[in-house]
Amino acid sequence: MLIVPEAEIAALMTPEAAFDAVEATFAAMSRKSAYNFPVIREAIGHADALYGFKSGFDRESLALGLKSGGYWPGNADKGLTNHQSTIFLFDADTGKCSAIVGGNLLTALRTAAASAVSIKHLARPDAQVLGMIGAGHQSIFQMQAAVKQRNFKKVIGWNYHPEMLSRLADCAAQLGLPFEEASLETLGRDADVIISITSSFAPSLLDAHVTPGTHIACMGTDTKGKQEVEAALLQRATVFTDEIAQSISIGEAQHAVTAGLIKDTDITEIGAVINATHPGRTSADEITLFDGTGVGLQDLAVAAKVVELAQKSGVAINVDF
Amino acid sequence: MLIVPEAEIAALMTPEAAFDAVEATFAAMSRKSAYNFPVIREAIGHADALYGFKSGFDRESLALGLKSGGYWPGNADKGLTNHQSTIFLFDADTGKCSAIVGGNLLTALRTAAASAVSIKHLARPDAQVLGMIGAGHQSIFQMQAAVKQRNFKKVIGWNYHPEMLSRLADCAAQLGLPFEEASLETLGRDADVIISITSSFAPSLLDAHVTPGTHIACMGTDTKGKQEVEAALLQRATVFTDEIAQSISIGEAQHAVTAGLIKDTDITEIGAVINATHPGRTSADEITLFDGTGVGLQDLAVAAKVVELAQKSGVAINVDF
Repeated sequence: MLIVPEAEIAALMTPEAAFDAVEATFAAMSRKSAYNFPVIREAIGHADALYGFKSGFDRESLALGLKSGGYWPGNADKGLTNHQSTIFLFDADTGKCSAIVGGNLLTALRTAAASAVSIKHLARPDAQVLGMIGAGHQSIFQMQAAVKQRNFKKVIGWNYHPEMLSRLADCAAQLGLPFEEASLETLGRDADVIISITSSFAPSLLDAHVTPGTHIACMGTDTKGKQEVEAALLQRATVFTDEIAQSISIGEAQHAVTAGLIKDTDITEIGAVINATHPGRTSADEITLFDGTGVGLQDLAVAAKVVELAQKSGVAINVDF
Repeated sequence: MLIVPEAEIAALMTPEAAFDAVEATFAAMSRKSAYNFPVIREAIGHADALYGFKSGFDRESLALGLKSGGYWPGNADKGLTNHQSTIFLFDADTGKCSAIVGGNLLTALRTAAASAVSIKHLARPDAQVLGMIGAGHQSIFQMQAAVKQRNFKKVIGWNYHPEMLSRLADCAAQLGLPFEEASLETLGRDADVIISITSSFAPSLLDAHVTPGTHIACMGTDTKGKQEVEAALLQRATVFTDEIAQSISIGEAQHAVTAGLIKDTDITEIGAVINATHPGRTSADEITLFDGTGVGLQDLAVAAKVVELAQKSGVAINVDF
């Protein structure tokens, strides 16, 4: 059994490797050769924690296993990340646990990779302005992955707590891009690509804010009740997602579906665009929206890549189990 | 993070420690301070394997986590156990993975402990004859745990493949007890306690076989479709279980409930008997039946005990994770 501790991940994994792993996973899901098992998510009644599992199996890569962990809101006071997760890989030929991989940084990387995949396949080729909604921990991973997909000239950003926008400004500066604080109205009008990565329970971006031709990646909604954008926007946009079952139940599309504005059959798996069985964006004026809910197979794919890299570089700990 | 490999478990864990851990878990479940999360079980479409998770949280002991693994029918040809599982414990205060424990032997010990708990609390005090149905891998663990609960004078056994009964005979001899092969009719007539531990999809023990005063522990049915005893027997018996939700869906009671012979409200959690909020057996003629479905909390409880013992004896491997 190989172990790759959390502290080793940063030196092993790159946004590019995460992108490739996640793009391949979405493609395999759309070919029906990889699927996610039902998500378990429980409020355990201790430490205000949410705990659970995302899991799945990819018959092509033979990635099998789960990510387990959750959200412990009191962790920050202890010097720990509130989101804690560990990824467990199993040998698909024997059922033995084959690897244990720290899942905190990988979760940020695979989530950022998902929106970057959506930008690659759905944003206008001439997109120049990147709009960021949210300035939390994951926002910089999102920006770093997104800027590789188009020739962006500027980043504009909005956050519920404007004093946190310095995080986005610093990240943009490191990427050599100017940054401007923007209202939601300005952001919706000027951005060609918008990434929303918040943990909001009420919409920030409204339908009226958004101009034709925009690509929007909604990356924050992963639970029943959360919402980042107005439901009417999903009716107006062409909606894509990682997994339709999660999109309509715990993803951004849950609200538009509940309100009867769209049906599950109106939503397309991004893997179909990757596999070229769906054309994706068909005009410069079309609004495309990617509902990134986060699936277990993404976690397995990036963990499998980390194990491969850790073995090559000799940092994987081998335990006779 | 502490690791206790499968090879260390036999020297660390005893049937007595498993009994205490499982009895305490059933009691906590009945007090509603411990609960199991939904079971995930998937035919993954590779190697004919069934893979999944059993998981839960005990707010009293703070045991949190899951057992993952499943059934790989081709393993025996590779010199591996077909049933493969690993138990993962998490720190309930932080969400960090705290321990990884081999789950193969522990699964046999916790399953045997469950039927032994049922015998302690439900069998007649004067029970003398133990009847065993099934002679597979787990049967000897069942016998070893059962004989500690009553002053048994004899073991009688039946198996679909009679040539395998030598396993039961050898085990009985080691325990200093005579063993006799029996028909199901004889077994049902003469045994005071019957343990059924098969993976059958059709009933072996019929209602007409069983005489008043018997305690029956049905330990083999853990999946939709499996069945060890005739449904009518559950109507005639007082039925107990580890968890009612599993009992009526994947346990032995599924058939009697589907046939309308009993309702979920006719089934009592064994924890209520342990906690003395239910009287258990109320007469010498009563037939008691324990539907042991196997819950994730049992796995967590025995794994937590193993970690405690492994730390004391210095065999736990500590990995900075």
